Order: sequence, then structure tokens, then C-alpha cells
Amino acid sequence: MWHQQTIRLKSRPRGFHLITDEIEQALPELRQVKTGLLHLLLQHTSASLTLNENADPTVRSDFEAFFNRSVPEDEPYYQHIYEGSDDLPAHFKSSILGVSLMLPVTDGRLNLGTWQGIYLGEHRNHGGSRRIIATLQGE
Amino acid sequence: MWHQQTIRLKSRPRGFHLITDEIEQALPELRQVKTGLLHLLLQHTSASLTLNENADPTVRSDFEAFFNRSVPEDEPYYQHIYEGSDDLPAHFKSSILGVSLMLPVTDGRLNLGTWQGIYLGEHRNHGGSRRIIATLQGE
Amino acid sequence: MWHQQTIRLKSRPRGFHLITDEIEQALPELRQVKTGLLHLLLQHTSASLTLNENADPTVRSDFEAFFNRSVPEDEPYYQHIYEGSDDLPAHFKSSILGVSLMLPVTDGRLNLGTWQGIYLGEHRNHGGSRRIIATLQGE
Repeated sequence: MWHQQTIRLKSRPRGFHLITDEIEQALPELRQVKTGLLHLLLQHTSASLTLNENADPTVRSDFEAFFNRSVPEDEPYYQHIYEGSDDLPAHFKSSILGVSLMLPVTDGRLNLGTWQGIYLGEHRNHGGSRRIIATLQGE
Repeated sequence: MWHQQTIRLKSRPRGFHLITDEIEQALPELRQVKTGLLHLLLQHTSASLTLNENADPTVRSDFEAFFNRSVPEDEPYYQHIYEGSDDLPAHFKSSILGVSLMLPVTDGRLNLGTWQGIYLGEHRNHGGSRRIIATLQGE
Repeated sequence: MWHQQTIRLKSRPRGFHLITDEIEQALPELRQVKTGLLHLLLQHTSASLTLNENADPTVRSDFEAFFNRSVPEDEPYYQHIYEGSDDLPAHFKSSILGVSLMLPVTDGRLNLGTWQGIYLGEHRNHGGSRRIIATLQGE
């Protein structure tokens, strides 16, 4: 079976956010899949999707602090600067972390590791609602 | 349906290049897929595939400048240096950005965000023609 | 056809390790697939999977050296520090490099480039055995 739909995430502040529950709740069709794969594409170039630790929230604030240092704002050599100081670094972070995830589905559930959760990286100061194309296939 | 083919990209200079049109033109089979997924694997270890902004070309030149600073050439601790100063940094960039994309297909077209395009990151000074294995599936 | 199974990798020291052979040997079902895709999900948040050069082992030790410099331990602003100095950097490396690979299968074999191999990035000092969910589909 194939199932494809748009998921509109609620608006979130800049930072890393755990969205595993929001994704699962949007996809009751997961329960019909014994063996399969779920693909998520975030349709944006200034946010990201990644898997990481789902327990201690300081991991997510450390992500924000680390990537802000690795990918600084307002470097003098930046050319694409007319959308604000947060924009170009958001593009770099989006490509470093990626905007797409493929996740195994087993017996009607996402088959992630015990400590794995889905992070939305919101890299803009005011990114607004973000859109994901979810494609589920399996048997 | 399954369709798999090799796409040979034309040779490009070092830097980031928008290749969305070249990919779509190589795959007329996309039009036969109502709901599906297209997978692209770049068969190289010194170039990359990523999604990012498809409009302002300075984003792509800023990508080149930023990743050249993040991943410098000729660090004294590098061991794998016999293929030239651009080679080892190209390997690192390839793994940071990735060499594979999975893209949703809807009603015969790639279902990307309005501002998303496919970037080839050519990280060698003279990388030559690059090869992609495209795998399309859907119904 | 769909085939899904768990692969338990043997325990490895911190660093980057070539695991292409271990993956292929765990999956005799690959030979039944003429055209398809193999998905691998590493069910951990402090290790990674990436594709890179399969020949010269100094590339892999340079990976370890480079990512240790890019993602330093013991930064004074880190908050999530109670699991050891190697833990939080391991989380960052896991998201920068990724924990998932999708690989084309052609005529019963992984269709990688000549120089491409699958790397396990073991980012903990004592990570132990790592677990992959492998999902194979094709015809």
C-alpha cells in the first residue's frame, strides 16, 4: 500500500523540538503496515529533520548552542544577507542536518531505537508553520 | 512500478550547482507515477547531493565559501594527502552533506517545496562527469 | 518483495569502520532482488552511518581526527555532560553524519560506486554492539 499526505506542523520558536508524537498522531495509517517504510520530506530550506536523543531536553538546547557556534551569523564574507542575519546560517544548517528522514515501520509502529526521537530543527527566528510530505508504503 | 537507471551529469567546476532540471529531464518516467518516491544515489565520495534554495545564486556561492572555511585544506594532521589538497576535504564534505536523496513524487512530478532545488556539490577542482543511480517506484 | 530484519554489528572501538561486507553477509536476500532498495537505520544516537572511500584506511583515521576537532569535547557551555565527555559530541556527530542509508540494489547486489563503502562511525569510547534495522524491498 501507498499513502501520501501533507502534515502541517504547528509553529515553533527557533531551536530543536521533539515532534515524534505529532508525526505519529497525524498518521493513523501506520497501524495498517506490518512491514514498511515512512518517508518524511520537510519542504523548506531553513529548517531540518534529524533523529537524536528523545529524553533529556538539555541535549536539544545544546544542539541549538553548538550549531549556532559552528554556523555563525553575520560573517563578513556572506553575500546572501538581505533576508536577515538568521537566514543564511539556517540554509547551511538545513543542508548539514538534512530535511528528509526514512524510518522503518514494523507491526504498525515506527521502529526507532529506544532513545531515538524525531527533531525538527527550526533555524529561523520566526519560521512559522512548517510543512512535511509524508509517504508511507508497506504491506 | 520500479524503474532504475544511471544518470550521467555533465562535468561542472568546483562549487554548488542546481541540477533539478537535469534530473527531471532524464526521467520522463516520473510522469507515470501518481504516488511514489524517487531515490538518487551519487556514486562518488568527493561530491554531494543536498536540497536547498533554488532562487538566489549567491546562496550557492555562500555554500562554497562556508564549507571551504569549515572544512579547510592542508591541515598539518591530515594523512590522506597524496591525491591533492582538495581531495580529503572533499571526502569530509561528501559525508557531511550526503550523497543520497529521497524525494516524494505526486501526480507525475517531484513534490518539493517552492524554494527547494537539488544541489550537486562538486568538491574536487576537476571532478569530471558524475554518475547517479536513480530508482523510481510508485503507482 | 519486502524483507525486514535486525542486524547486530560486532562491538568496535571509537572511530570509523568499514562495514560493507558485514552488511552484505547478513543479507543473503539481496540476491533475490533484481531492482530495489535497501534501507538501513542505525537505532542509536551516538554513532552514525555514512558512505565514503573504501580503500585507503587513513581516510577513516582522518575522519576521526577531523570530526574530533570540528565537534570538540568539554566545551564550557555544554549542559548535557553527565554521561561523559564523549557523549554529547557523539550526539552531534550522529546528526551531522546521519544514522540512515538508502542504497540501490541491482541484479542481486548493492549498486555502490567503485570507491564507496559503508562506514560505521562509532563516536563513543565504549559504544558496545550496535543495532541496525534493515528493510529490503524490490522485485
